[in-house]
Amino acid sequence: MDNTALFNLSYGVYVITTWGEGRATGCTANSAMQITSTPATIAVSINHDNYTNKCIKDTGIFAVNILGENVDPVIIGSFGFRSGKDVDKFEGIEPLVKEFTPVLPQAISYITCKVINTMETDTHTIFLGQVTDAGNLSKDIPMTYSYYHKVVKGTTPKNAPTYKGD
Amino acid sequence: MDNTALFNLSYGVYVITTWGEGRATGCTANSAMQITSTPATIAVSINHDNYTNKCIKDTGIFAVNILGENVDPVIIGSFGFRSGKDVDKFEGIEPLVKEFTPVLPQAISYITCKVINTMETDTHTIFLGQVTDAGNLSKDIPMTYSYYHKVVKGTTPKNAPTYKGD
Repeated sequence: MDNTALFNLSYGVYVITTWGEGRATGCTANSAMQITSTPATIAVSINHDNYTNKCIKDTGIFAVNILGENVDPVIIGSFGFRSGKDVDKFEGIEPLVKEFTPVLPQAISYITCKVINTMETDTHTIFLGQVTDAGNLSKDIPMTYSYYHKVVKGTTPKNAPTYKGD
Repeated sequence: MDNTALFNLSYGVYVITTWGEGRATGCTANSAMQITSTPATIAVSINHDNYTNKCIKDTGIFAVNILGENVDPVIIGSFGFRSGKDVDKFEGIEPLVKEFTPVLPQAISYITCKVINTMETDTHTIFLGQVTDAGNLSKDIPMTYSYYHKVVKGTTPKNAPTYKGD
């Protein structure tokens, strides 16, 4: 088996946000996709070890924040390589609130969702969310995961499904 | 709600293949993503109305065939806009067989899976597949859905989650 074949799947770069205990929190993710169009639903995959996983289960809501090619890379690192349990990832960032859900103002688009189903795996939860609101905040081009690796020279947090090792 | 925000999610272009009654079949899809790395699992979303949906349920196996930018557009149309119930989509194509699963020789990479879980929605089934084999067939660049729309000027089958209307 040549696992490099899996690297040819295409993804975007997202920050999945929700409410933690008393503050907005979230984590970077590349595993998000639309499942149905009527009603619009989105599936996201979040590692059990991510604080965001517990917080989505507690609140039943999340937002997919789509990052653009010109996003400050600090945003990706800030949301990807630290735990929202330990630090306030929104420190210095005033979240927008759409349908009671925190949204990252630096996103080019946001999609807020309420959880309508979940599927558990050994390491990740797939949350199926029904879209409650959506909007565009900028005209920047959506960042693909491939662009992130090639141009931003990004690395992947260990909890990501696509983690490739050091 | 501005649903155009959903168009900024990033996808690849895939053909999901399996066995129909007596022959290989499949359909184009853009909704596929890796969920876990150990063991490697992939989720794909297939409309209930697609013959491929029934066939994956019958056989319990499928392959994700990743298309490259230089794929013959006829492949996308052939697998996207007809039903494998009515026509032999593999007519003139000898499928490779990997782990008992038909694979499209024109793909740049293939990932064969056995179904380990499913989640139903109103219109689509999300199949969670454990990867049984994977390999690369070409060094072409993976086609993104954005590239397909902008360069190949492709349209979207009505059964796709991302169908935008006529």
